Amino acid sequence: MFNIFPLKGGLSNVDGFFCDGVNVGLKDGLDGDVAFIRSETPCDISAVFTTNKFRAAPIKHFLNYPKNFKSDFILINSKNANAMTGDLGIKDIEEILTNLQKSIKVQNPIMSSTGVIGYRLKKELIKSAFLKFDYQAKNSYKCARAIMTTDNFEKELSFKVTLENQKSFHIAAICKGAGMINPAMATMLCFIITDANIPKSDMDELLNSANEQSFNSISVDGDTSTNDTLLLMANKKSGIYDKEAFSVALDRLTKELALQILSDGEGSTKVVAFEVTGAKNDKEAQKASSALSNSLLVKTALFGEDPNWGRIASTIGASGVECLEESLLIKYDDLVIYSKEKTSLDEETEQKAFKIMKKDQFKISCNLGIGEGSYVSYGCDLSYEYVKINADYRT
Amino acid sequence: MFNIFPLKGGLSNVDGFFCDGVNVGLKDGLDGDVAFIRSETPCDISAVFTTNKFRAAPIKHFLNYPKNFKSDFILINSKNANAMTGDLGIKDIEEILTNLQKSIKVQNPIMSSTGVIGYRLKKELIKSAFLKFDYQAKNSYKCARAIMTTDNFEKELSFKVTLENQKSFHIAAICKGAGMINPAMATMLCFIITDANIPKSDMDELLNSANEQSFNSISVDGDTSTNDTLLLMANKKSGIYDKEAFSVALDRLTKELALQILSDGEGSTKVVAFEVTGAKNDKEAQKASSALSNSLLVKTALFGEDPNWGRIASTIGASGVECLEESLLIKYDDLVIYSKEKTSLDEETEQKAFKIMKKDQFKISCNLGIGEGSYVSYGCDLSYEYVKINADYRT
Repeated sequence: MFNIFPLKGGLSNVDGFFCDGVNVGLKDGLDGDVAFIRSETPCDISAVFTTNKFRAAPIKHFLNYPKNFKSDFILINSKNANAMTGDLGIKDIEEILTNLQKSIKVQNPIMSSTGVIGYRLKKELIKSAFLKFDYQAKNSYKCARAIMTTDNFEKELSFKVTLENQKSFHIAAICKGAGMINPAMATMLCFIITDANIPKSDMDELLNSANEQSFNSISVDGDTSTNDTLLLMANKKSGIYDKEAFSVALDRLTKELALQILSDGEGSTKVVAFEVTGAKNDKEAQKASSALSNSLLVKTALFGEDPNWGRIASTIGASGVECLEESLLIKYDDLVIYSKEKTSLDEETEQKAFKIMKKDQFKISCNLGIGEGSYVSYGCDLSYEYVKINADYRT
Repeated sequence: MFNIFPLKGGLSNVDGFFCDGVNVGLKDGLDGDVAFIRSETPCDISAVFTTNKFRAAPIKHFLNYPKNFKSDFILINSKNANAMTGDLGIKDIEEILTNLQKSIKVQNPIMSSTGVIGYRLKKELIKSAFLKFDYQAKNSYKCARAIMTTDNFEKELSFKVTLENQKSFHIAAICKGAGMINPAMATMLCFIITDANIPKSDMDELLNSANEQSFNSISVDGDTSTNDTLLLMANKKSGIYDKEAFSVALDRLTKELALQILSDGEGSTKVVAFEVTGAKNDKEAQKASSALSNSLLVKTALFGEDPNWGRIASTIGASGVECLEESLLIKYDDLVIYSKEKTSLDEETEQKAFKIMKKDQFKISCNLGIGEGSYVSYGCDLSYEYVKINADYRT
């Protein structure tokens, strides 16, 4: 038995970690644009990176460290992804992190970036942050604000996990990501810290499985960025660990953050769960479910709050999975909107469907009636605002 | 040697064919909503249909005819796709086509539908067209208008093909399709008629290859409908045929119509060719090229006329094809916008790129520098208007 208690204050709850965010002029306004997370002792690090072939310089820099290296410092900047910058992009990171050592002694520092692709980092501005940081601060909010790009709100979450013997450990995270969110991660940075006494092998295993059921099952626009990073830092300071408890807490943490990203999807007004059951197998269920969460016609129908189930059916039919008109069943929440017996919408069903579609969150379920495969992915609608944000983003 | 002369008047140029379109009240306004194309003698028919698993009733009805059947009549309606309507949808077609025989004697009549999915046809309204049609008319324009859904303009094209001996045949087509246009066809109906003396085996072969390089290489929104139909009717009346001449004319006809569809893409303001060269093989080139023409982030950057080549690179990197940051070269028309030597945009290049992006049509070329594979697909931008059309379409 164990209990998970949500705590206010994000990263600040985890023993032995410090964080801060400052503005050095990369971003206009009051929010920070450079942040750090550090531990007073070296940490084991696990990471999952983007599947994009053009990995950004910070990811290449990370991968240059020896396997199972320990680190006590992550430096993060927004506004510039340091991607498609070649060897110079890596040299820039090295120069910046060497300069950091003048302000604070760190071991194997990691850098992480998000923003526009194809521009060199403004090194001097970023270095100027080192004189502004409070290295003893626990400013989780400032840190979470500083890593935002098109996000509308900061994303931080933390849990205290108490075991049967009343001993406890903490796990907390900040993340960012609003557009380019796709089943294969996407412009998403998430930094998780813990004081649990978790072995490195469990870190790798549990982080991968948590990623699958969270960040890898959401889609804002079907694009996958060059910079996606999910990172777990463990300083073991509490001396306490229970694999099952940690796993449940980590899954819950990443799932909740993934849904926060989705509800903050660029221009999104609602979050929809696309549940596919009765598929030939889980893989086919995932294929159909992802096709739904990525379909422009489905996304615009959601925005228009139009119970046009024909677009749901058509998208499943086009996804390439095994399916039959005769065995398909489509529901909006608990309302059957299509079955073999009920093809055309009667007035009453249509009115009920309108009501469901007006909600901020609801579920569209499709039972293919073929086999036992199932999968749930999460998506959002596509609004004028999405087009506006992405037509204007760079300039 | 042969010559291809474009003619005004669409379908009306082909000997032995008649067509008309009338309004029976499915559509508001002056445009027709039911149309026919007929031949005075039975024709060989070749067809390519949607890959969507939920094929609409008219496609199922067509496939119930014996292989290599001949037909002299196509009936087409807009506003209702007669899709996901089960066996009743097919029975409705049979009832309508039986009724048609009271007005004109036809052989193996074909029906084709486009519009909203999931509603039964309004049979009595459609039947009322049979008393309004002028069966001796050559009203290509009215016919082309009647099959439109969200299209902004009718699409018709016809060629006279003259051989070396001065003998000639005709080929002409009408088509519709504005949204749901995807590399795998999509809500697209295209009816091609010819008086060339083409053998049935050539019809099948040449129609498939024409489809590949035209309708299968364009994308408006990545969706594939339940009703896509590309149909070729040959009455052989001219007695004239030359395979190469026919093939070139058919390819040109379908390619031009495909680009017309794209320039009429829902809310689209520009058409862009995405050329991928230097890929490992043609299949990988097609994969990368289609990823570009389907990417929301690329499409919104096109709409915003923002020379943000980072989104082009990121989309290629995410598409799963073999590629290297070091060997990639990106051009907008003839302007190099990214190469290993030139990562950040200088002011002059940026200004030139702005100018190119303001054009109605331009080309984005990506040389992956890996192998010999190449492919071109065509796409359009994503505007507020697309969201508006598709949020409102059904209601």
